[in-house]
Amino acid sequence: MLEVARDRRTEALAEGSRLGAGLFEALAERTADAPGVTRVAYGEGEGAAFALMAEAAGDLGGDSVFDAAGNQFLTFRGADRSRTIYIGSHLDSVPHGGNFDGAAGVVLGLAAAAVLARLGSAPPFDVCVLCLRAEESCWFPHSYIGSKTALGRLEPTVLDTVLRSDTGRSLATHMRELGFDPEAVRRGESRIDPARAVAYIEPHIEQGPVLVAAGRPLGLVTGIRGSFRFREAAFHGTYAHSGATPRTLRRDAVVAASELVMAMQALWERLERDGHDLAVTFGIVGTDPAQHSFSKVAGEARLCIDVRSQSESTLEEVRRRLVETGLDIAARRDVRLELGPLGGSTPAVMAPRLLEQMRAAAAAAGIEAVEMASGAGHDAATFANAGIPTGMIFIRNENGSHNPDERMDMADFDQALAVMVDLLQQPADRWG
Amino acid sequence: MLEVARDRRTEALAEGSRLGAGLFEALAERTADAPGVTRVAYGEGEGAAFALMAEAAGDLGGDSVFDAAGNQFLTFRGADRSRTIYIGSHLDSVPHGGNFDGAAGVVLGLAAAAVLARLGSAPPFDVCVLCLRAEESCWFPHSYIGSKTALGRLEPTVLDTVLRSDTGRSLATHMRELGFDPEAVRRGESRIDPARAVAYIEPHIEQGPVLVAAGRPLGLVTGIRGSFRFREAAFHGTYAHSGATPRTLRRDAVVAASELVMAMQALWERLERDGHDLAVTFGIVGTDPAQHSFSKVAGEARLCIDVRSQSESTLEEVRRRLVETGLDIAARRDVRLELGPLGGSTPAVMAPRLLEQMRAAAAAAGIEAVEMASGAGHDAATFANAGIPTGMIFIRNENGSHNPDERMDMADFDQALAVMVDLLQQPADRWG
Repeated sequence: MLEVARDRRTEALAEGSRLGAGLFEALAERTADAPGVTRVAYGEGEGAAFALMAEAAGDLGGDSVFDAAGNQFLTFRGADRSRTIYIGSHLDSVPHGGNFDGAAGVVLGLAAAAVLARLGSAPPFDVCVLCLRAEESCWFPHSYIGSKTALGRLEPTVLDTVLRSDTGRSLATHMRELGFDPEAVRRGESRIDPARAVAYIEPHIEQGPVLVAAGRPLGLVTGIRGSFRFREAAFHGTYAHSGATPRTLRRDAVVAASELVMAMQALWERLERDGHDLAVTFGIVGTDPAQHSFSKVAGEARLCIDVRSQSESTLEEVRRRLVETGLDIAARRDVRLELGPLGGSTPAVMAPRLLEQMRAAAAAAGIEAVEMASGAGHDAATFANAGIPTGMIFIRNENGSHNPDERMDMADFDQALAVMVDLLQQPADRWG
Repeated sequence: MLEVARDRRTEALAEGSRLGAGLFEALAERTADAPGVTRVAYGEGEGAAFALMAEAAGDLGGDSVFDAAGNQFLTFRGADRSRTIYIGSHLDSVPHGGNFDGAAGVVLGLAAAAVLARLGSAPPFDVCVLCLRAEESCWFPHSYIGSKTALGRLEPTVLDTVLRSDTGRSLATHMRELGFDPEAVRRGESRIDPARAVAYIEPHIEQGPVLVAAGRPLGLVTGIRGSFRFREAAFHGTYAHSGATPRTLRRDAVVAASELVMAMQALWERLERDGHDLAVTFGIVGTDPAQHSFSKVAGEARLCIDVRSQSESTLEEVRRRLVETGLDIAARRDVRLELGPLGGSTPAVMAPRLLEQMRAAAAAAGIEAVEMASGAGHDAATFANAGIPTGMIFIRNENGSHNPDERMDMADFDQALAVMVDLLQQPADRWG
């Protein structure tokens, strides 16, 4: 009897996997833009992806509906229809991006629904596979438009002031063009009642190399890192003849910048050793092409500083030390530090109970998952910060994301599917 | 009697100073190109400067002649007419440059000739004030064209392959256009017989801040630094998501570059403490604007390295350590170092006897001069490396050179004039 059940489950999972593989294939085909795929937010590729997912949901007996902003809710009946488990992600991509960033979350939700249908196993609550719009900030330079509109939490001015990078037209205009209702979005209308939302689960390919390096297929996310950023920092010194200016009379912006990079690197190592979650990146540095020369001491060095952590207090501490160290270097080297505007985001904590449920589901499926922070931002942060219990599953992926070379193996997708199905079969009382 | 002599000398020096001031004024007027002056090599401003100097030399009874390359020889009779003391510098300037870089050397030579004439004091040998062409490599990107052609030492291919940056036409074409004879230059013809050249003395404004910082009007140059340069060095790592890529899995080109900058800075301090002459400059650094982003670990960091020293063996040692350190950093940080083509120049030693003569002349004039290396290159290096006893006098100058703000006070020029006149009055046996 047990063996028969196991065979049925294996077969159902295989069917879910086939559905997933078929959806990825169709997606790649319908949104191809060599090299890679392009799914413009509120544009053609995203629209094709939405239609494909709605069609698949319909085949599985799911219900399809848009909200005012054009996010798509694909709902499958559960035992208790008064509450909902959301599984979702975004369906837009960067230009010439990979096929899996975003899409994997939606496809996994549909594949799980297919497995449950095949098993005749109703989930404890309605399961809604949520297709979100406009997550890639390359199109509309504002974060989490899909999840914010889905939750009725978009700052209304964004509708008019944030323009799509390729058309120069506003978010509201693009919504209206597709038949959606920006005025309802402006009023904060939402199809999601947080009180009735049991959980938001976002499966996503990992965008870093941790799982590949660890040799593990899945990651269970403990939190989404917040950040602070000085995107326009610079040291200002004095341009001077490289041969004729003695060391002690220099006001060298490049040396000051290098010292700051190394000091922050050392701070990172120290805090990491003490168990703090942290990432410090100087992704852009540079002297001024209009003035620099191989034979001049550099009078200016630009720096872009990106610091991330799951902990608000670590961010606070690093920010304080960065300013302190930068000003100390500036004083000692007789240069001026201009940090420029400060940007950033708040860390989001994943729900401990949901993490525990995912841990159990992984154990049941015999999978050793890595528990890790998400360094990249995700729509899940919006849900978590709206008070909805939120979790994320990372699927191993090679070559990073936002490029045509991202590579998720279906074998790893299948592991995530097994975990998701087990999770959705956990009884109502486990969900709290 | 002595007092009368002193008065006559003071008056003669004042007359030389007035001539100098007048020449600077006329120069600034005739080559004005606001802000600053522009004297294009083999172009208009340089031509106006040459004409002005020839005119002044004529007024003083000097003889004016061009060589095949268009360098101008302004000769004043000395006691022994079989040998010559050369005083010279270049008369071109960078675009929108200052009035004194180059010109001060020629003007000082003429002012000294004026003082000697007024005093009725013949120098021990002929004195030739040499107006050189094309020293600023912004016009023809090749160093020391004027001194090399004056000495018949220009590599012949330079005539055809080196093009003027604003016209795109060759050096030979520009020579021919002004009526000079590039074919004679190609054959290595020269008006200077090194065996009959007693000395080459190049007065020049200081291009660094040493004299201003030391509060001294003059510098006596001990040597001209040589250099080595890697103008196209780069660390190559891997672009990666700044939030999602752990420290230990990064291949961060910016951190590698910063570490190299700091390591070379430390090496410089150490060698300087041990008495070595050295200058290490990273004048250009930068990530790739086509690929960098504030949220990506930098996969490439470009570096431009300029190292200068009076000592060939110090250059050798630093080059060895630079390569060693760079490769060590690359290995530890799992990035690749590409140093690119190596360029540079040979240090030139100033003649010890001439330095001693200038020291004595400064002492006689009651001037405390700083003995220092020239970090910038000068035509004097060509003369020194041709075996002609060579010396340089630096005149204090604020705000560096190659900009319209360079500032030499006439009071400092007058001090240099006093030293030069005393030097030219030293008897023949002192010159060796």
